[in-house]
Amino acid sequence: MSLIEDINSLIKPLDLKAMEGARVRQNRLTKPPGSLGRLEELSINVAGIKGEVFPHMDNKAILTFAGDHHVVFEEGIASAPMEVTAMQVDNFVRGGGAVNVLAKHAGARVVVIDMGVATPYKSKTGVKNKFVASGAKNISKGPAMSRDEAIKSVIGGIETVLEEIDNGLDIVGIGEMGIGNTTPSSAIFSLYTGLDPIEITGPGAGIDSAVLDKKVNIVKRALEVNNPNKDDMFDVLSKIGGFEIGGMVGAIICCAAKKIPVVIDGFISTAAGVLATSYNPLISDYLFLSHKSAETGYKHVFDFFKTTPILDLGLRLGEGTGAALGISIIDAAVKSLKDISTFEEAGIVL
Amino acid sequence: MSLIEDINSLIKPLDLKAMEGARVRQNRLTKPPGSLGRLEELSINVAGIKGEVFPHMDNKAILTFAGDHHVVFEEGIASAPMEVTAMQVDNFVRGGGAVNVLAKHAGARVVVIDMGVATPYKSKTGVKNKFVASGAKNISKGPAMSRDEAIKSVIGGIETVLEEIDNGLDIVGIGEMGIGNTTPSSAIFSLYTGLDPIEITGPGAGIDSAVLDKKVNIVKRALEVNNPNKDDMFDVLSKIGGFEIGGMVGAIICCAAKKIPVVIDGFISTAAGVLATSYNPLISDYLFLSHKSAETGYKHVFDFFKTTPILDLGLRLGEGTGAALGISIIDAAVKSLKDISTFEEAGIVL
Repeated sequence: MSLIEDINSLIKPLDLKAMEGARVRQNRLTKPPGSLGRLEELSINVAGIKGEVFPHMDNKAILTFAGDHHVVFEEGIASAPMEVTAMQVDNFVRGGGAVNVLAKHAGARVVVIDMGVATPYKSKTGVKNKFVASGAKNISKGPAMSRDEAIKSVIGGIETVLEEIDNGLDIVGIGEMGIGNTTPSSAIFSLYTGLDPIEITGPGAGIDSAVLDKKVNIVKRALEVNNPNKDDMFDVLSKIGGFEIGGMVGAIICCAAKKIPVVIDGFISTAAGVLATSYNPLISDYLFLSHKSAETGYKHVFDFFKTTPILDLGLRLGEGTGAALGISIIDAAVKSLKDISTFEEAGIVL
Repeated sequence: MSLIEDINSLIKPLDLKAMEGARVRQNRLTKPPGSLGRLEELSINVAGIKGEVFPHMDNKAILTFAGDHHVVFEEGIASAPMEVTAMQVDNFVRGGGAVNVLAKHAGARVVVIDMGVATPYKSKTGVKNKFVASGAKNISKGPAMSRDEAIKSVIGGIETVLEEIDNGLDIVGIGEMGIGNTTPSSAIFSLYTGLDPIEITGPGAGIDSAVLDKKVNIVKRALEVNNPNKDDMFDVLSKIGGFEIGGMVGAIICCAAKKIPVVIDGFISTAAGVLATSYNPLISDYLFLSHKSAETGYKHVFDFFKTTPILDLGLRLGEGTGAALGISIIDAAVKSLKDISTFEEAGIVL
């Protein structure tokens, strides 16, 4: 626990001086002030996070945390067999997943982390081992994991970022893989928004309306049976979370501590974002929401953040796919800040 | 004129077989069907345009057409001196413009075309010369140009694409530079939407509300004085258009004829898109709207197109900046179609 507290204590407000420097520079570039809209804001935020008017953006990574969820199989609401989590881990290691293709497009490496994959995958190398336990337990009958396991999963995420910093890390995308993980995420959003699970819970990767009704009831039961305390992030994570969600929480906390911009992916990653910002509200300044997930409850989650989604492309895949596209836009924003000529450089006098 | 008619006659409906092939492939990739949302649609449209299930996307270009507009200087509503058009041409040739930075991000080259820049620029090379005349005339007092000049400007755009095809051209972004060119664009939108200029006309690069009132009246007068016939695209272009707008129209027509996806930039490029689709409605299938421009009237223009903007980032710069970001997203969509493993390749059986 002390690692988590130590890391958390490093999180500071944004560097206002660097932000002002970036804002001044944006207004001196050869374009009408403000005409690059959101790109200008993004570049100024990155400058504030990194404390640099010319932020480095050389090394990018998508961290894809994987873990399983027994609830959806025991309760018969899964969209795919549990083995698909492990098969997709192998697919990511081979470079064949959607996240690999979009991360490559964004110039980012993909790091796959096993937080709690319940069935065996074939890859002997290429998966970072932060395994806590063999899938989160059935949250409709009791807690997903023990409090110690929740802490261990967060530490796994922190360690992942600390290890990856050695490979260069200027911006991080947060993604996940875990069949069934919209169910705990829906429970987390219901808890923090106070909204009925029926307003939050959606079809995830794809289930019909009869199964969706069952899923809504399971989310309700998960909250009733566990009665998580939303003022205690580890209580929530242990009762209605998952190992990959804990890993993402740890990664987000560590990135904020290390002044690394964190780009959140979709519905499940955003649940991790809600948990992390509930743990330390300063973290909100370090987060970017890459896209507006097409999942039902997503529209209710904006109040938790100081920012709004960059893209709205109807994505509902996860893995870090939307985060990769978000990183590409942020990269473009930072390049704009750094590389467009100033009026002075261009010899333009208005 | 016969070049325009010859090129226009080549425009055919999309290749439905290639689209179906792309759709089938998208559903076999290792992700829930439809989970990449807009990316899947974009990739299928590109397949239909190019007639390829695995569309090539190696050579990308932003075509930035430049031209001046005497109306805004004679009527005192300009946001910047006329010389800025020429200075920005030089800035683009040196690689220092916003369009250069964002095009590089998207892996696209920038081609700068002089359609009618009224003041001298310094660049001796690096500007494609399709000059028609020294700036569009004051449209609040008469036509912008003769009908022959309108035809010549469209031919300049067609020739630009034909010449650039030799350098490799898998996708094109359409952009422009011309101080004052939101004024003719507002007139064009008012004409085709039938809306009062006050609902269409916005601050462009930045003018105050008193000047904006004047601008609205100038747009009204341009329509009254010229009485353009919206069923005759060359009549509209000659009376209330501009040389760079004509160049963009020609480029759009030629891209559709040559099965090259065309990514429209902002307010002014979209006015060219409206003109081109009014000339031949089949062209709409070949167009992508890169982003939702922040300019006032933009929200009224969607009915002209079969598609909606990909991005909404508050951009209002032009040059092709938004088109560059749109190309990057379309590129990601095509990579997804081509490079994500199928379930069969990944050995995943559901």
